[in-house]
Amino acid sequence: MPQVAVQHDLVSLIDALSAPARHAPESGIVEVMNYGRRRGGVMGLWAGEGDMPTPGFVAEAATRSLAAGETFYTWQRGIPELRDALARYHTRLYSRPFAAEEFYVTGSGMQAIQIALAMTLAAGDEIVIPTPTWPNAAAATGIMAARAVQVPMIFGNAGWALDHERLARAVGPRTRALFIVSPSNPTGWTATLDDLNATLTLARRHGMWIIADETYARFWYGAGERAPSYFDVMAPEDRILFVNTFSKNWAMTGWRIGWIAAHPSLGQVIENMIQYSTSGVAQFMQRAGTAALERGEGFVAHQIARARRGRDIVAEALARTGRCRFALPQGAFYLFFTVEGETDTRRLALRLIDQAQVGLAPGTAFGAGGENFLRP
Amino acid sequence: MPQVAVQHDLVSLIDALSAPARHAPESGIVEVMNYGRRRGGVMGLWAGEGDMPTPGFVAEAATRSLAAGETFYTWQRGIPELRDALARYHTRLYSRPFAAEEFYVTGSGMQAIQIALAMTLAAGDEIVIPTPTWPNAAAATGIMAARAVQVPMIFGNAGWALDHERLARAVGPRTRALFIVSPSNPTGWTATLDDLNATLTLARRHGMWIIADETYARFWYGAGERAPSYFDVMAPEDRILFVNTFSKNWAMTGWRIGWIAAHPSLGQVIENMIQYSTSGVAQFMQRAGTAALERGEGFVAHQIARARRGRDIVAEALARTGRCRFALPQGAFYLFFTVEGETDTRRLALRLIDQAQVGLAPGTAFGAGGENFLRP
Repeated sequence: MPQVAVQHDLVSLIDALSAPARHAPESGIVEVMNYGRRRGGVMGLWAGEGDMPTPGFVAEAATRSLAAGETFYTWQRGIPELRDALARYHTRLYSRPFAAEEFYVTGSGMQAIQIALAMTLAAGDEIVIPTPTWPNAAAATGIMAARAVQVPMIFGNAGWALDHERLARAVGPRTRALFIVSPSNPTGWTATLDDLNATLTLARRHGMWIIADETYARFWYGAGERAPSYFDVMAPEDRILFVNTFSKNWAMTGWRIGWIAAHPSLGQVIENMIQYSTSGVAQFMQRAGTAALERGEGFVAHQIARARRGRDIVAEALARTGRCRFALPQGAFYLFFTVEGETDTRRLALRLIDQAQVGLAPGTAFGAGGENFLRP
Repeated sequence: MPQVAVQHDLVSLIDALSAPARHAPESGIVEVMNYGRRRGGVMGLWAGEGDMPTPGFVAEAATRSLAAGETFYTWQRGIPELRDALARYHTRLYSRPFAAEEFYVTGSGMQAIQIALAMTLAAGDEIVIPTPTWPNAAAATGIMAARAVQVPMIFGNAGWALDHERLARAVGPRTRALFIVSPSNPTGWTATLDDLNATLTLARRHGMWIIADETYARFWYGAGERAPSYFDVMAPEDRILFVNTFSKNWAMTGWRIGWIAAHPSLGQVIENMIQYSTSGVAQFMQRAGTAALERGEGFVAHQIARARRGRDIVAEALARTGRCRFALPQGAFYLFFTVEGETDTRRLALRLIDQAQVGLAPGTAFGAGGENFLRP
């Protein structure tokens, strides 16, 4: 049989990849994490996770399931027990009834986002994303050959605010969705009911979807036990996909388990998206998720109180320097600040690892309007 | 603020989704599984998994890791210990050196496939896939708005064979990759070294990638302890992405952990693809994977011997009916057979659940050339 020689001198393997994969950016957060991990001995505040491991009763639910041999393929949409628990959790938190059929278990909040993007965007479509924001949704959009249109938020003496005029102007003929993270990573900005209504009105007017990332809903320093939500203002038939995760509330960052909340009529499509990406989530992980929802409220309250104390301590220390500028976060567990005279925050983050053994995420990782900030 | 009413009568939520998501097919296997699970009391032979749970020493590695608090974010490419173990496993199995940098841990074999597809195809591109085959790669291709071009294999008295002429004719200007599953799910066909060389030559000639799904490499009933592999015939700089999984060898189907083997120069791209899809695999899962590789050879040998016995028992029973036609599988752990007079295998699979309480996968799920078959 005739053999064709490999022409490895002509084109590198990377050049032979699809353009969207080749152009995916390295995460500006992960770059710093990898740098710090290799160095060792660094207090890593780069990632969105606390210093407490997953609570024992959650881990033990997984351990029991493993010991019982629950290691086979399971329901693509999630095990019925976990979907029921998600419905009960939401019913309590949002004071209206939810059904198990509205919830779909995913292999991380990130995967929930990836699926929501694939459900709403095709190649060439656009999604509008207020920035600064966690960069992964925009990067995942790029891998689909769709375009993330960044709309910088306003940062002023009243803190961060959505620029509704500019959001509206960013919507074009190919815009299919808005991506709203509230409470926001990294700014701590949290949408008011007016913000939610205004963006929903905009979405309805243009037939757009809203992808609502309410990961930090519980980390909320206003009145009540959770932040304002699209659940408060929507009609059942609105085009909203909620993406969420077990990572933050229950200290399960390393587990990779999240969920989508969506109208039950989308069930078969979401099942297909799960089937053709990771084919579901381990049953023993889902037992842990169920335990977290059913017995985790005490832990959540402890986490939130701790985050509030942390916020206040860091805010006071930064204010005392007289060189930092920031808005006191209304939600989430970050504190996004500038340092007078420091403009290259990527270099600053690497320098802080070398000189202070502290790892912060550089604002350059969070898109337009965040470049001069750092995020612990 | 002016509110726009929801226009829910005009367009259903499903109609408002992106076309590729809306058109993703329901898995013909999962349809039957869901039907049987709801019914209950069915012996499910529909999915590619055995009846043994994950071995204790593997599950216990995860349990120990959980108890030790390894529940934080970890390396996107996989923990160094697991990548080292993968390199040692391959070095032994393929009798040549491998480096840890050639391995990337993914959240299932399916995710390895999804990532490999995204790395090689953009919207409008084509991938050539011999059929019948496991349907998920083609479905994942469709979700990316790329096209899976099915090339039926030849089924004759000598068993299943690749149709190399037809494969070559299926390659067009938009073809970017070949997807080769060997040993094959569902047919048990296994590529010979000649098949591997011929497809590699075809790929080199057209600058195409090969996505090599060698999930069933160990379930091989010929000489040696694994099937012929692209590792046997490739040069280091060939455009080959290997996708694999812990699911079958170590009875870890429900875990969702797999790997990609690829040239180290692709490391940053693969890290990005992981970061923007599931952001890595739980560390405690990776400890289990490490234990499987390091201490699992006895279990693998036991699994393979059991699969061979199962194959022989089923083959003999089917032959005895005088109504079934099949090729004795050379690899994998399925037996793909026709039943005389039965042409609608989807209905037949549902009927078998109702009348015999046995769940088989219908051949209609596996693409062109498999329609009249059933797969236990």
